[in-house]
Amino acid sequence: MTQPTQNVPGLYLDDLYVGQKFSSGTYQVTEERIKSFAQEFDPQPFHLDEAAANASVFAGLAASGWHTAAIAMHLLVTGGLPLGNGIIGLGGELVWPRPTRPGDILRVESEIIDIARSRSRPDQAMVKIRSTTTNQKGAPVYIFTGRVLVFNRPQAPA
Amino acid sequence: MTQPTQNVPGLYLDDLYVGQKFSSGTYQVTEERIKSFAQEFDPQPFHLDEAAANASVFAGLAASGWHTAAIAMHLLVTGGLPLGNGIIGLGGELVWPRPTRPGDILRVESEIIDIARSRSRPDQAMVKIRSTTTNQKGAPVYIFTGRVLVFNRPQAPA
Repeated sequence: MTQPTQNVPGLYLDDLYVGQKFSSGTYQVTEERIKSFAQEFDPQPFHLDEAAANASVFAGLAASGWHTAAIAMHLLVTGGLPLGNGIIGLGGELVWPRPTRPGDILRVESEIIDIARSRSRPDQAMVKIRSTTTNQKGAPVYIFTGRVLVFNRPQAPA
Repeated sequence: MTQPTQNVPGLYLDDLYVGQKFSSGTYQVTEERIKSFAQEFDPQPFHLDEAAANASVFAGLAASGWHTAAIAMHLLVTGGLPLGNGIIGLGGELVWPRPTRPGDILRVESEIIDIARSRSRPDQAMVKIRSTTTNQKGAPVYIFTGRVLVFNRPQAPA
């Protein structure tokens, strides 16, 4: 389901710069998983039942926003944001501009917005990254501006 | 696994006020589900493997932050935030102050921070709610300050 659009080695703090951009592979969202995710984590009628969803503010079955967020994380971890130490998120701001629908094909474009090196630990930084998840029409369904902990490249043993 | 600590009927905009507080039931996090959630959505070593997690910045197996977020939503939907129209989130700010661990028992305390009625549609408002998820030691693992769409109580047909 996922095809990373690039295959770069793991990046460290030294490799990053403001304005740097990354692209993920794609992920097709199924109605079955929308409903089973919602059943476990967000059991509200507009995530579970077509008729209820049609009558709701969503005007049709919609994925839980947390399902969309989790799919975006999958896309980042599987090539969309190739950080050598992994993606260690501390927090951030998110918005869901429109619902994710059954059959949607999602992808994530990310951009580094800010890099703040720690004064007390200059081998690490708080990197702010804006990740925009779009559907197959190019319309944003989820934007997460996250703060990620990134380290310098490990030194080879002396 | 979940025991709502209160059983109030669905609340509408007319029922809400700044400073109002809500409490959820509890949810015990299992190692098995931490790993399977991570396998699907956040396949990083510190969410999947004890040895790798011990050697990481997390110093032990940690749940994906998105798993914690999804559990918090479960606790809100199942009694922790009893809104009559459901919990329709538009976005918000989140922070993960510390990891969620296998065996942790989570609960969510919520407080209404702000109510902004729409000028163009005075029957609805954007309600800002801070939801703090704590573990069994009372230590916060996740704080989400979300913007939720809330409507007036539906009028009975004339």
